[in-house]
Amino acid sequence: MNTVAIFGVGLIGGSFALALRKAGFGGRIVGVSSEETVRRALALGVIDETLGPEEAARSADLLYLAQPISRILDILRELDAWVRPDALITDAGSTKSAIVQRASETISRCQFVGGHPMAGREQRGVDAADPVLFRGRPYVLTPRSPSELDTPQVRGLMNWIERIGAIPIRLDPQEHDRIVAYTSHLPQLASTALGALLAGRSEPRSRVFGPALIDSTRLALSSFEIWGDIVATNRDQIRAALERYCDTIQMFAQALEQDPEALRAYFRRAEEFASQLRETP
Amino acid sequence: MNTVAIFGVGLIGGSFALALRKAGFGGRIVGVSSEETVRRALALGVIDETLGPEEAARSADLLYLAQPISRILDILRELDAWVRPDALITDAGSTKSAIVQRASETISRCQFVGGHPMAGREQRGVDAADPVLFRGRPYVLTPRSPSELDTPQVRGLMNWIERIGAIPIRLDPQEHDRIVAYTSHLPQLASTALGALLAGRSEPRSRVFGPALIDSTRLALSSFEIWGDIVATNRDQIRAALERYCDTIQMFAQALEQDPEALRAYFRRAEEFASQLRETP
Repeated sequence: MNTVAIFGVGLIGGSFALALRKAGFGGRIVGVSSEETVRRALALGVIDETLGPEEAARSADLLYLAQPISRILDILRELDAWVRPDALITDAGSTKSAIVQRASETISRCQFVGGHPMAGREQRGVDAADPVLFRGRPYVLTPRSPSELDTPQVRGLMNWIERIGAIPIRLDPQEHDRIVAYTSHLPQLASTALGALLAGRSEPRSRVFGPALIDSTRLALSSFEIWGDIVATNRDQIRAALERYCDTIQMFAQALEQDPEALRAYFRRAEEFASQLRETP
Repeated sequence: MNTVAIFGVGLIGGSFALALRKAGFGGRIVGVSSEETVRRALALGVIDETLGPEEAARSADLLYLAQPISRILDILRELDAWVRPDALITDAGSTKSAIVQRASETISRCQFVGGHPMAGREQRGVDAADPVLFRGRPYVLTPRSPSELDTPQVRGLMNWIERIGAIPIRLDPQEHDRIVAYTSHLPQLASTALGALLAGRSEPRSRVFGPALIDSTRLALSSFEIWGDIVATNRDQIRAALERYCDTIQMFAQALEQDPEALRAYFRRAEEFASQLRETP
């Protein structure tokens, strides 16, 4: 692997570039992004040079798509004409079914494998890029069949994923989307719903709140610019998760009235779950 | 004010003791707590001495009840026989209607005023006590009528509240309980419900999650030992808040299907709300 082209040099794309370099990648890192981002990424030493999408695609061994999902879906219509046959295209989009489906329709001249590094932070943009962002975090790859992992290109990618400290996990695209509907999209929407509800009420204006409210509205700071694409490409799974969450809330309301012991059991179960999440490596 | 008796030398009671001392209180601080807690509190220098509840109540100018709510409700049945007529009883319980009601029935020989410092952290117990825990945080007082604040005893308490860096706010007990149902109890139950739902599902066992899930289950680590009393003494307000939260979640699920622009508006409103929460001093 001599040349990596990062499409979208934001938090994830920039962090992947920095992580590769830190892990000993000696080749060229080309950035494809807006003029302003590219200028900043060059100044920060995140990328070595910048090219337009076509030139970048023509020169790259690895094309790393780290744009918003809708941009990834768009560029997947273009890349096939430009890529080298021995190249690998991968992406870092937060939902996988739509992207993997699109790639299966548009990419035939080289290999594509979907990916999702489970890392992030509130800050966005290349200034927040961090070479250790992926360290210790799961990095999901979503081939349509397991044999897709068994090519020199993907074995090379998996090797770099391990070298940057992440933990590769293989999942079916649909299974990935069902999982993140519960572990990522539901937490996000629960926080946004809390913020949206409280924004319309007088109680918070009293200034009478503690650190809990700050904590539980942290995710609500996330932007729809990112989340609009995520929810649009994972509607059914997210709707199912929201419905089950609502059912749980209603069970709580009922237990509150009628069954303190049930409420105690819910608290204990949630506490155990939250503790276990924090124990695992 | 020469002698302060702290009933329940945990995070809040211990922090109040340390904060008083740091703010220049030169009198005696007596702790009333379990044998183990008292030994630790003495070793840490949080209290000067320990007494049984009766002796502590007989000697104190200020009785500061920082136990769980059910213990506060219990001890309010006992204190009237012991207190000095010029003493002030206050408490730090997280709900106020039940406590203020109980005090109105049981305390006649000295003054009582309900209180709620809006501060806390995950850790509990006297080891987590912190002299600056209340700094910059609202400290609610809930007299049954505003004139109750106009006594030398309460003016003295308010003066210490200001000296420890907290911001005194006066609220009617019922109004307090309605506000915290939305700003504190709802965030707690939303996190506990998320934990309870996910504990019963397979998705988190994939280890495929990011920092968002850790964030959104932080409050779920809270113990029912504390929260059982809170929900039991604020049932109606909490049920109303849970129902409105559920309505909002359902609106989200519907917008997801039918109205992306509505979803964008919810996100924007939530984001603005979350930003504003963080801006205010």
